[in-house]
Amino acid sequence: MKCTPGIELRDLEEMNINIDPIQAGGRLTADAMKAVIAYGDGYSVCDNCRKPFRLDYIEKPPIATFHDDLAAFVGMDEARVVPGARRGFQAVTGTYVQKGDPVLLTALSHYTEFVAIENAGGVPQEIPKDDLNIIRADAAAERIEEVSRTFGRPPALLFIDHVDYQFGNCHEVREIARAAHRYDIPVLLNGAYTVGTMPVDGKDLGVDFVVGSGHKSMAAPAPSGVLATTAERAGEVFRTTQARGDLTGRTFGIKEVEMMGCTLMGATLMGMMASFPHVRERVNRWDEELANGRIVVDALRSVEGTVVRSEMPRRHTLTRVDATASFDRVAGRHKKRGFFLSSALKKRGIVGVIPGATKVWKFNTYGLSRAQAEYVAAAYVEIAEENGLSVAPPDERA
Amino acid sequence: MKCTPGIELRDLEEMNINIDPIQAGGRLTADAMKAVIAYGDGYSVCDNCRKPFRLDYIEKPPIATFHDDLAAFVGMDEARVVPGARRGFQAVTGTYVQKGDPVLLTALSHYTEFVAIENAGGVPQEIPKDDLNIIRADAAAERIEEVSRTFGRPPALLFIDHVDYQFGNCHEVREIARAAHRYDIPVLLNGAYTVGTMPVDGKDLGVDFVVGSGHKSMAAPAPSGVLATTAERAGEVFRTTQARGDLTGRTFGIKEVEMMGCTLMGATLMGMMASFPHVRERVNRWDEELANGRIVVDALRSVEGTVVRSEMPRRHTLTRVDATASFDRVAGRHKKRGFFLSSALKKRGIVGVIPGATKVWKFNTYGLSRAQAEYVAAAYVEIAEENGLSVAPPDERA
Repeated sequence: MKCTPGIELRDLEEMNINIDPIQAGGRLTADAMKAVIAYGDGYSVCDNCRKPFRLDYIEKPPIATFHDDLAAFVGMDEARVVPGARRGFQAVTGTYVQKGDPVLLTALSHYTEFVAIENAGGVPQEIPKDDLNIIRADAAAERIEEVSRTFGRPPALLFIDHVDYQFGNCHEVREIARAAHRYDIPVLLNGAYTVGTMPVDGKDLGVDFVVGSGHKSMAAPAPSGVLATTAERAGEVFRTTQARGDLTGRTFGIKEVEMMGCTLMGATLMGMMASFPHVRERVNRWDEELANGRIVVDALRSVEGTVVRSEMPRRHTLTRVDATASFDRVAGRHKKRGFFLSSALKKRGIVGVIPGATKVWKFNTYGLSRAQAEYVAAAYVEIAEENGLSVAPPDERA
Repeated sequence: MKCTPGIELRDLEEMNINIDPIQAGGRLTADAMKAVIAYGDGYSVCDNCRKPFRLDYIEKPPIATFHDDLAAFVGMDEARVVPGARRGFQAVTGTYVQKGDPVLLTALSHYTEFVAIENAGGVPQEIPKDDLNIIRADAAAERIEEVSRTFGRPPALLFIDHVDYQFGNCHEVREIARAAHRYDIPVLLNGAYTVGTMPVDGKDLGVDFVVGSGHKSMAAPAPSGVLATTAERAGEVFRTTQARGDLTGRTFGIKEVEMMGCTLMGATLMGMMASFPHVRERVNRWDEELANGRIVVDALRSVEGTVVRSEMPRRHTLTRVDATASFDRVAGRHKKRGFFLSSALKKRGIVGVIPGATKVWKFNTYGLSRAQAEYVAAAYVEIAEENGLSVAPPDERA
């Protein structure tokens, strides 16, 4: 079915259960959809922009209030909307990282953190993960010491993923922040997989910056995100322009340099705002989300040879599975080869898995109902059994 | 009427004729609206992202083709979508401007150009405008010479607004680019008010970069825009990441540093794509747009004391009017003070003018039908007459 003459309609979410690792938290709410329709036009939110002419001061629609709510939501003092989490990273590296400065991130860091550091001319240095794929505070402290010795100065900034994109694991954020602060290193929490799906309190964690992704975890259109910080750091990362026209003498008011002036207008912002009351409420149901995720995880673990590579028990709905000794063995003898699994899932209305992947893959059950989680769990078991893999409850195997 | 419990419905465009200077070119087409609805979810366009995993390589929906079409549309070799024109500026300053480098822009440059330069640590230097508010090539050449002497090196980059936001005037772009190239200075064309509304051919103009705004002039949701360049410059501004995990050895493929990896996903991109066939066609009707704009301009000039501050005859639909000696005189004696004008327009269903502004203001007739333009023109004349201003055809006054 056509959406426009050149574009197919997208009905993937309406027609299927989608367990794609990056799409789960960014599906729009019905309210977001309404707002996107009403505020689709380019500069739609600027109807009532008055002096001092900045997006986060607009009161109609209630953008100013939303900014306050957003800061409070992540337990910080000030927040700005940004075109994606990566642009939040870029604002922070742009502020703190000079050419040649070492910057710490982790062995599980997302590529956008590397790019943000590279963009500012910094030198990314990884904190190693342990055997369980967790970033520990002692590893962070050691790396701070080592990097400080090598570069003759402490790292300019430290990135820590609240929950990483590879395993969906939780890391020792609070302890890492404490270690970093002993060296006066500002700490940026990458909450792309947590802000908007589970409770996040930046001050409680002791970080300087919380970055979230609207399109990944806040039920908002892309590109959208949030950069929040403390009162102490706000004057640095949200500093206003000092530029001046050398001939005209023009100055540019309170536009913020790292924000490039006004930030998200129109559909992206309004989608984020319309979803926000739902997002604020849904983080309190995180336990239900985890319970649903565990149903699928348990089903996969019941398939002989299947190993969950993420930490157990699961504390996030994004999970990495290693089926080299189970589904991938089937792939070796199946006429559809590796495609048998995605194809069997698709037949059952389950999508979001990479076609052909049977060795190691990730899935995300965020937003599934209990019934849908049970359906996905049963589907994996069924497919295993149909293909001659033996199935037994994981506790009987341990 | 409510859109969601906390957000009022926006029906400004449906219920009124909107002559706001920045909103006219960014109203969505019906196809864009459909695409925004179908692709509203965060990472909606990523369903079929395959190796080498970059947004502009996705074929379903036809994002790859769109990128080719977009480059051709502005007469350049390569194009990327960006979250707003300002992020295109930032990518270019990030590539070419080192701390302390002089960068040329003009006395009519938009503030986002200043901020992009400041963001990279550059020193903005203005090319003066002449008495008619036009940026001339001889002024550019002089300023290049002068700045080169002062800084001991030529400017790192030169910004020229195709049509500026203050007067909607056309400048000597081709001649300025030629002058800059004699000093090997790359030239960025700010096409925020032209790409998507009038024909733009970057190679014909001889510029190195063309930047356009999706939400300002391409009937797309915000934030969106385009950065296009020549084959020669593409390797510089679109350079791929060299980052490497020092412990894990991870590398990050062909993600582009200044793009921060993948760019516009979801609603913004798909809105832009869905509007594109219409946008490509509408630039050919620019003459009709100019004709409609002139109807309103002539009407305003027919009001005694009203002066058009933009160049005449108008070559753009954005126009600056000085009514200090006409409508503003009325404001001095009217019981609504300066609000009489916006209020009288609103009563007639005409919006997009700053409430209370009677001295100098801007309007944009882009996208009005002939009948709407005539209606707006008649409204101004009527309001003038109702308030005791005399009206005569401008040619009888000259």
